[in-house]
Amino acid sequence: MKCTVCKEPAIIDIRRHNAKFCPEHFLKLCRDQTAKAIKEFSLLEPGDRVLVAVSGGKDSLGLWDLLLDLGYRADGLYLGLGIGEYSDQSGDYARAFARERGLNLTEIDIRDDYGFDIPSGAKAARRVPCSACGLTKRHLFDKAAIDGGYDAVATGHNLDDEAAVLFGNVLHWHPEYLARQHPLLPARNGFPKKVKPLVRLGEREMAAYCLLRGIDYIVEECPMADGNRHLRYKAVLNELELNTPGAKADFFFGFLARGAEHFALPEGDDSLRQCDRCGAPSSGEVCAFCRLTERATASTQSTNATESAPVVFTGRDRRPPQ
Amino acid sequence: MKCTVCKEPAIIDIRRHNAKFCPEHFLKLCRDQTAKAIKEFSLLEPGDRVLVAVSGGKDSLGLWDLLLDLGYRADGLYLGLGIGEYSDQSGDYARAFARERGLNLTEIDIRDDYGFDIPSGAKAARRVPCSACGLTKRHLFDKAAIDGGYDAVATGHNLDDEAAVLFGNVLHWHPEYLARQHPLLPARNGFPKKVKPLVRLGEREMAAYCLLRGIDYIVEECPMADGNRHLRYKAVLNELELNTPGAKADFFFGFLARGAEHFALPEGDDSLRQCDRCGAPSSGEVCAFCRLTERATASTQSTNATESAPVVFTGRDRRPPQ
Repeated sequence: MKCTVCKEPAIIDIRRHNAKFCPEHFLKLCRDQTAKAIKEFSLLEPGDRVLVAVSGGKDSLGLWDLLLDLGYRADGLYLGLGIGEYSDQSGDYARAFARERGLNLTEIDIRDDYGFDIPSGAKAARRVPCSACGLTKRHLFDKAAIDGGYDAVATGHNLDDEAAVLFGNVLHWHPEYLARQHPLLPARNGFPKKVKPLVRLGEREMAAYCLLRGIDYIVEECPMADGNRHLRYKAVLNELELNTPGAKADFFFGFLARGAEHFALPEGDDSLRQCDRCGAPSSGEVCAFCRLTERATASTQSTNATESAPVVFTGRDRRPPQ
Repeated sequence: MKCTVCKEPAIIDIRRHNAKFCPEHFLKLCRDQTAKAIKEFSLLEPGDRVLVAVSGGKDSLGLWDLLLDLGYRADGLYLGLGIGEYSDQSGDYARAFARERGLNLTEIDIRDDYGFDIPSGAKAARRVPCSACGLTKRHLFDKAAIDGGYDAVATGHNLDDEAAVLFGNVLHWHPEYLARQHPLLPARNGFPKKVKPLVRLGEREMAAYCLLRGIDYIVEECPMADGNRHLRYKAVLNELELNTPGAKADFFFGFLARGAEHFALPEGDDSLRQCDRCGAPSSGEVCAFCRLTERATASTQSTNATESAPVVFTGRDRRPPQ
């Protein structure tokens, strides 16, 4: 197997590109595809300050590495979600990555700062863990980006992730979700810009990228996601891809090119107010995250009545309107 | 296993309805679901004269039986497509069904009337067999319905068929195909109304329906369709259905309820002329079927120069504008 570019020995065969790559040209491909996505979807401007949502997995650590390599000023934010050993280990990987490279990693532990963790908090609030976790992550990454004056939050969603989410949205025909599925969500109503620069790279490529770049990452999937729909949709799409290389990319980029426009929402119809408790943009008096926190900690207080109740809503959660 | 309705022994478990049925109540379910689809999508009016597109398979013969049972005046049209033994056998099943019940079945053999068959004609015209076959069937069913003064052409597309077609249209994001995917295509521009009354019934139900009603049908899939995408999409959807009973119906009916409107075409933008050769509605001077016939028979003439060339375009193909 020879590299399609230079004919040196290849280490990876990417069937949807009908090409094989040596280490050097594979790393170039990853950088080029990231730069292409950033340009194609107007994700970032040169010199942008980016906050990378770091989980300790291959995608977020690879993304951080790629953004720095492409010349962006990128800091990391790691959220301790309290998901047992999984959180402990993923935090270790994130910290080691930042330490070895002298990078700026902020950490927030939701138990320390908000008084709950995802497994017990989701249960107390009667939410599916993945739903409580997603809500928490969106809220805290948004807040950190706004508070820190970053130009964008970057997440490591890759092509497999986006295709699986699209598949779910199409299976259930959620027009409002389809309207929002794009690698770029512009800043609006006090929310920061959110970008997904890895949409042109698959899971397998991100794993190979980290291996070649010497990036250690947590390999395990989150134990709370076990058996969730998202993973089943990925399996279905992988089966299609096996028969028709490129099917996944055609599905996702075909949607962006020819499908998304049909679901576009009329502009400016989403006026939001500020959450009475934390100041975040919200459709109601209290934002979904503050409601989750309230329910999650109410349970902690009642079941562990001897422990002092954590102080959840402090002045630092208040911020001026954006 | 007991019938959910009457507690007598059940013979079928339909997981997406979370119900089991005895023979009597299963047959009632099939009739009810067909009537419900007809009403829900305004497919037919009481007393309509319907031309059933009969292939000799479970869906088209079951559909014919159901429509008669529901009180519609339904005749059958069988097309001999010249696909070897498969066509011979499927024709035998169609003829036997009509003969035993004293029904009116018209037959058209495309070799006799148009001088080609699907396997060699598709090859000569450099079309995928399924594409040449679909074009031929649409053209000849439309023509027969208009010529015979029928109110509608009814086809046996079931829920599995429609979900698989929708899946393909979504994987490739063909907005114009998505715009047309509906159980009802109203009459327009010289085309007859086309209806799919079986969209609420799955393949498995249609097989059971025929078994219980003593309808013999051809079990084999068309040999030309072997390995085609449509069958692969069905397999993928069956896998999803296995994990989440009802997934297929949610996907298809969710599209009709919340997706289809986003792809609706502006009305009246499809002005057609008449084909110079056969008078059928056409976007160009010569319709796609006449072009197929021309290319398919040109090859017959050159490769079998000793055989007399079939007369293809006769006066009876001309018909007044609709």
